[in-house]
Amino acid sequence: MSPVHLRADAAAGLWGASLLYPACMTVLLLDHVAIATPDLEAGSAPYVALGLHPEGPDEDVASQGVRVRAFQVGETLIELLMPTRDDSPIAAFLARKGPGLHHTAYRVADLNAEMTRLRADGARFLNEEPTPGRAGSRVAFLHPKWGAGTLIELVEHPAGGHPAGGHG
Amino acid sequence: MSPVHLRADAAAGLWGASLLYPACMTVLLLDHVAIATPDLEAGSAPYVALGLHPEGPDEDVASQGVRVRAFQVGETLIELLMPTRDDSPIAAFLARKGPGLHHTAYRVADLNAEMTRLRADGARFLNEEPTPGRAGSRVAFLHPKWGAGTLIELVEHPAGGHPAGGHG
Repeated sequence: MSPVHLRADAAAGLWGASLLYPACMTVLLLDHVAIATPDLEAGSAPYVALGLHPEGPDEDVASQGVRVRAFQVGETLIELLMPTRDDSPIAAFLARKGPGLHHTAYRVADLNAEMTRLRADGARFLNEEPTPGRAGSRVAFLHPKWGAGTLIELVEHPAGGHPAGGHG
Repeated sequence: MSPVHLRADAAAGLWGASLLYPACMTVLLLDHVAIATPDLEAGSAPYVALGLHPEGPDEDVASQGVRVRAFQVGETLIELLMPTRDDSPIAAFLARKGPGLHHTAYRVADLNAEMTRLRADGARFLNEEPTPGRAGSRVAFLHPKWGAGTLIELVEHPAGGHPAGGHG
């Protein structure tokens, strides 16, 4: 690639560093950080003390067996997850590890395309197909082994976007 | 407070909701999410696969006994922390829990003022005084009991700001 092409790429908003990191920049932002808690009120205390505000009412996400309270901070949400049934993955997490950080979620524009791209790269997902998330989103969880020990979620919001992000 | 004053507050950028949440909105954004890893290369793999880029070179933070590699995602950083000495808190965390999510860090404009405010509210800090963080920042960690089971850090960046945030 000639210097002229490099300058053209830079002018188009592509980083020179993209030559070193060939993967596309497909993650838009950190959608949320999820925290497991046995009690939404007790779990909320530090975020209220920090001056954060819940974004809308609590929401039940049946697919995960959780009730979610989301605090907006900049373009990201802190999501508190409380189990609503005994076989919720969050109930199992709390029994094993107690309250604490559960997963990070990255916003993507096209979840199916990302799943296809990452599978071709060797990634494994916990759910084979996208599953319903909070606020009308579609989500997929990558296997913690793929995430080097952390549980990573991908989130696609419905067209028209999401109150957080882009407004943060 | 009269309706006239409420409208004046709204015009000044204060939310009506601030009547329900008396604490000031003092947190600017989610500065970073920190992940403990025994190996920066292995720990980087999922973030490189997601198309994220390290922000600058790895940095040693002597006060915490860690080497840090930071991946920018929107206005937030994903910080991988690898212990650089046996008595690092991250070495202890890895021995106890293995690799995974370690803490969240919130950016504030005035760390000393926040510490004073939160202490008056009953908060306990792990470090009595601000300690040096990454990239010239000053940081303080709140006690995990205060954080409802999660370790929460406050970060103040030097005047002139920080490459992430405000640019995301």
